Amino acid sequence: MSDYKASLQDMNFVLHEVFNVAGDWATMPELQDMMDADTASAILEEAAKMTEGLIAPNARNADEQGVSYKDTVVTTPDGYKEAFKQLAEGGWVGVTANPEFGGMGLPKVISAQYEEMMCAADISFSLYSGLTAGAIIALDSHASDELKEQYIPRMASGEWTGTMCLTEPHAGTDLGIIRTKADPQADGSFALTGTKIFITGGEHDLTDNIIHLVLAKLPDAPAGSKGISLFLVPKFLVNDDGSLGERNAVAAGSVEHKMGIHGSATCVMNFDGAQGWLVGEPNRGLAAMFTMMNYERLGVGIQGLGAAARSYGIALDYAKDRRQGRGAKATQDPNAAADPLIVHGDIRRMLLTMKSFIEGGRAFSSYVGQQLDRAKYAPEQSEREAADNLVALLTPVAKAFMTDTGLEVTIHGQQILGGHGYVREWGQEQWVRDCRIAQIYEGTNGIQALDLLGRKVAGSRGELLKPLLADIEKTLAEAGDGWQQEATQLRDAATAVQAITAKILGQVGEDENIINSLAVEYLQLIGYVSYAYLWLRMALVAEASDSTDNFYAAKAKTARFYFAKILPRIHGLIGALETGSENLFAHDENDF
Amino acid sequence: MSDYKASLQDMNFVLHEVFNVAGDWATMPELQDMMDADTASAILEEAAKMTEGLIAPNARNADEQGVSYKDTVVTTPDGYKEAFKQLAEGGWVGVTANPEFGGMGLPKVISAQYEEMMCAADISFSLYSGLTAGAIIALDSHASDELKEQYIPRMASGEWTGTMCLTEPHAGTDLGIIRTKADPQADGSFALTGTKIFITGGEHDLTDNIIHLVLAKLPDAPAGSKGISLFLVPKFLVNDDGSLGERNAVAAGSVEHKMGIHGSATCVMNFDGAQGWLVGEPNRGLAAMFTMMNYERLGVGIQGLGAAARSYGIALDYAKDRRQGRGAKATQDPNAAADPLIVHGDIRRMLLTMKSFIEGGRAFSSYVGQQLDRAKYAPEQSEREAADNLVALLTPVAKAFMTDTGLEVTIHGQQILGGHGYVREWGQEQWVRDCRIAQIYEGTNGIQALDLLGRKVAGSRGELLKPLLADIEKTLAEAGDGWQQEATQLRDAATAVQAITAKILGQVGEDENIINSLAVEYLQLIGYVSYAYLWLRMALVAEASDSTDNFYAAKAKTARFYFAKILPRIHGLIGALETGSENLFAHDENDF
Repeated sequence: MSDYKASLQDMNFVLHEVFNVAGDWATMPELQDMMDADTASAILEEAAKMTEGLIAPNARNADEQGVSYKDTVVTTPDGYKEAFKQLAEGGWVGVTANPEFGGMGLPKVISAQYEEMMCAADISFSLYSGLTAGAIIALDSHASDELKEQYIPRMASGEWTGTMCLTEPHAGTDLGIIRTKADPQADGSFALTGTKIFITGGEHDLTDNIIHLVLAKLPDAPAGSKGISLFLVPKFLVNDDGSLGERNAVAAGSVEHKMGIHGSATCVMNFDGAQGWLVGEPNRGLAAMFTMMNYERLGVGIQGLGAAARSYGIALDYAKDRRQGRGAKATQDPNAAADPLIVHGDIRRMLLTMKSFIEGGRAFSSYVGQQLDRAKYAPEQSEREAADNLVALLTPVAKAFMTDTGLEVTIHGQQILGGHGYVREWGQEQWVRDCRIAQIYEGTNGIQALDLLGRKVAGSRGELLKPLLADIEKTLAEAGDGWQQEATQLRDAATAVQAITAKILGQVGEDENIINSLAVEYLQLIGYVSYAYLWLRMALVAEASDSTDNFYAAKAKTARFYFAKILPRIHGLIGALETGSENLFAHDENDF
Repeated sequence: MSDYKASLQDMNFVLHEVFNVAGDWATMPELQDMMDADTASAILEEAAKMTEGLIAPNARNADEQGVSYKDTVVTTPDGYKEAFKQLAEGGWVGVTANPEFGGMGLPKVISAQYEEMMCAADISFSLYSGLTAGAIIALDSHASDELKEQYIPRMASGEWTGTMCLTEPHAGTDLGIIRTKADPQADGSFALTGTKIFITGGEHDLTDNIIHLVLAKLPDAPAGSKGISLFLVPKFLVNDDGSLGERNAVAAGSVEHKMGIHGSATCVMNFDGAQGWLVGEPNRGLAAMFTMMNYERLGVGIQGLGAAARSYGIALDYAKDRRQGRGAKATQDPNAAADPLIVHGDIRRMLLTMKSFIEGGRAFSSYVGQQLDRAKYAPEQSEREAADNLVALLTPVAKAFMTDTGLEVTIHGQQILGGHGYVREWGQEQWVRDCRIAQIYEGTNGIQALDLLGRKVAGSRGELLKPLLADIEKTLAEAGDGWQQEATQLRDAATAVQAITAKILGQVGEDENIINSLAVEYLQLIGYVSYAYLWLRMALVAEASDSTDNFYAAKAKTARFYFAKILPRIHGLIGALETGSENLFAHDENDF
């Protein structure tokens, strides 16, 4: 496998030239003393050094070796323990955690770049700290001060990790039917009993303690999703002086054997009267967990981006190095027996499809990250609310579209290597397998689509779409003569989004199945149009630059490619969206 | 994993009701006494019993256990040896082989169904006999009578297997640069020296001998692909009395560790002066090998179909059984905590996408199979030539489009199972990994597209498209009132194909890169339109049927689904095809 090289130039371009995030920070009381463009670039440089040198080299072996399980003990692949120790020592586990509890408190738009690098280096490894970061946020938002003080500092420092325990054997997407019970104890704690499955990092040997956030039902809980509470259940109980006490009654029953992310311990967790503490209000656990889920969802989208970026690096090196056949226009290298693969149109088509999804995705995750920061730190409440609305709209798109395109990219990356992309030795097929899970977990991409079209778009009667459309309008107004063709394409696309949205909203009253029938294609439509918006925006910035660096000309060329070759896909989606739900519900169960 | 059930009803529908293959056979001197509809159905029933009961049960273990290698010896997974013995005893290895040499000589349109079943049961296992069948055909077409008599009967009986040895470490797609040498010996044989990689079934423990067909260069060979010859190199030399003699100087150096098809031995083969015999003319080896490749290419397409069919079976069982959430329209089962997955629109969208690609693909492979039979057996030369032209056009589409859609189908099948689709235990993710190779080997799908658009369509100045368009016209003329919307869609699509083809042909003279830039999207366009043609044709047959069997109504409903939800994808392809090669060649190598 080629060595990993983080895309620092593109990250800095997106952050500073496209989104001017430092301009935002200067207006934000909590960030203005801490962050500026130079600080941000320095942090990203350190993150690149760390992920390239410390994390990435373990990924291949971790895939081959995997985690192992024996008698409730899980052993991670060689190198993980030492790497996690160094990661923690560098403060990277608490990169987004509240500084009050020892975190770095970095803006999301910066941690998004760091997360991309972590995922591009090794998705499996990234999950141990990634879920810890999510658990910290859930605790910070909902736990009592006592629990916060007791747990968050040790998690932010990377001494302990965190998990989210939701799924049960019979309950995945449908959490309303979980059976894990929480019985109140005399001391105010709870005894948790039940089995959770698919628990990422549920057990491992990286840290001395693991803090589980567990969804369970109180004895008097109402049925369904309104009767779920959230509990903190540590692997080892913590004494008042902070030292570790007794082992709690929670243990891994096994680890799953999976298609990919072999270095990540996916555990069956058995709770046998384990002691836990309520986080937030009784029966409000799903809402509390969603604080974490929403954070994770952008993070999962970024897994798709990271896998894509790494696959591209490998494919590009191969395409420049491997010689097969001759260029159609002219022989490139008459002294060699064949020309490098990159002379061939179809290789270029695949590379540019990859590149346009990766750079478009990097801009998209940064766009969402900037809105998350504004929602949290903007000085005016109106700004915070506006950003929060955009986040609500774009989070499901980020999770699903970045992972759908991530899979497409890794498949192209594999195809470019031909047979060598199918054998494990080259390390390229791993990215297909590792990326694939990101479309499934943390709410399948189908569920993300329902959230987008049902809860967000239909739920707001289309209002939530308006800020995105307004941002598109702003960029269209800035497009000069050289970009009128692309601007017209984008304008038509935005008009089509409005038309199809209005049509669907008009059908909601009479067709209960319209949302669940059209959601996925609708989400993809929004994804392609959002990327087109960001590509035009990037192209205009690149063109306006004084720099003679090749990077800027290439950016504009890739934008043209995206509009010419990728954006037309929306016509297929629009065609499918026009035809409603009828053709999905005409079949009886026996007709399948 | 659910048990495999072959789709016999649909196969019989396609063969007899859609294509009336028995009507063809009645006119063909070599088939008329041997084949009729009842015989065909009886053969397929036997094939179903055999693949369901003997082959499919080994697939899961074969994936986990894989092949193992030690000191040039390859051991196949448990059960393979016994299954291969029974397969051979049943005559299935020689299913397509010339009866003169002990084969069954079945028409291709029947063996295509058998191959689907073999692949749906276990792709890895199917390769050992599949490559043998291909090798037999290459020998039958090009070898001397002596070689034929010596080798084919033992291969057709399944006593020995065959391989094709093309790829070398530096030469995959570009076979013109191979380095394996064949030195003439005094006795008329040749001594072969070189290294071949990615050799399927290059070594194994299923049979006593393995017959390698090897591409190599004679000492005086011209450079490039016009200097390649084909040789037969047995693992064990064969004595005049047919008994096995000395071990030849060919041995496996290792086996590859791959993303999937773990039960298939993919070998590095070292030839160290191995004794071989020329097959066909000197320096005409590539043409001889293509006889085998063309046969294999439909077979590889069918691998995509088989994987898709199996994945669908598993996903459908799961969707009916697994309960998550409630139907949007109404609760389906108030006595249970949740409704089965199949009530949800997005699950139906995925199932029907799968179903429409599988049944469309089965019709497509049968369509190509029927043409292959006509090309070989039709009484009139004009019929044979017409069929041969259609085969030339459709073979690359069959290989690439059936495997591209195969991958899409297996990914949907995995998604329907959610997290359970990602863990190995359920056996569903295996089909994604096993299917993936079919887009890569036997000429990557990009190479198939070049063959279609470059050699076939542009090479004939569009003439080769005409028979397909004429077949479409014929079906359009038969469409009654109830199918006018779909007929219009198909007519417009066919018109668009003609327009874009004319545009591309017009660009060929001035743009050397137009073919290699647009080939893949062009192939996909032809694929979607061909499936649309077959869906309309099937729908008309189903509607005209007197049968009250649910199958016929379901067929018509799935046709409507295909036109409503899948065919619109061509608009995205057409959009991309309109924009030519410019956006692929604007990037310098350093711009990537």
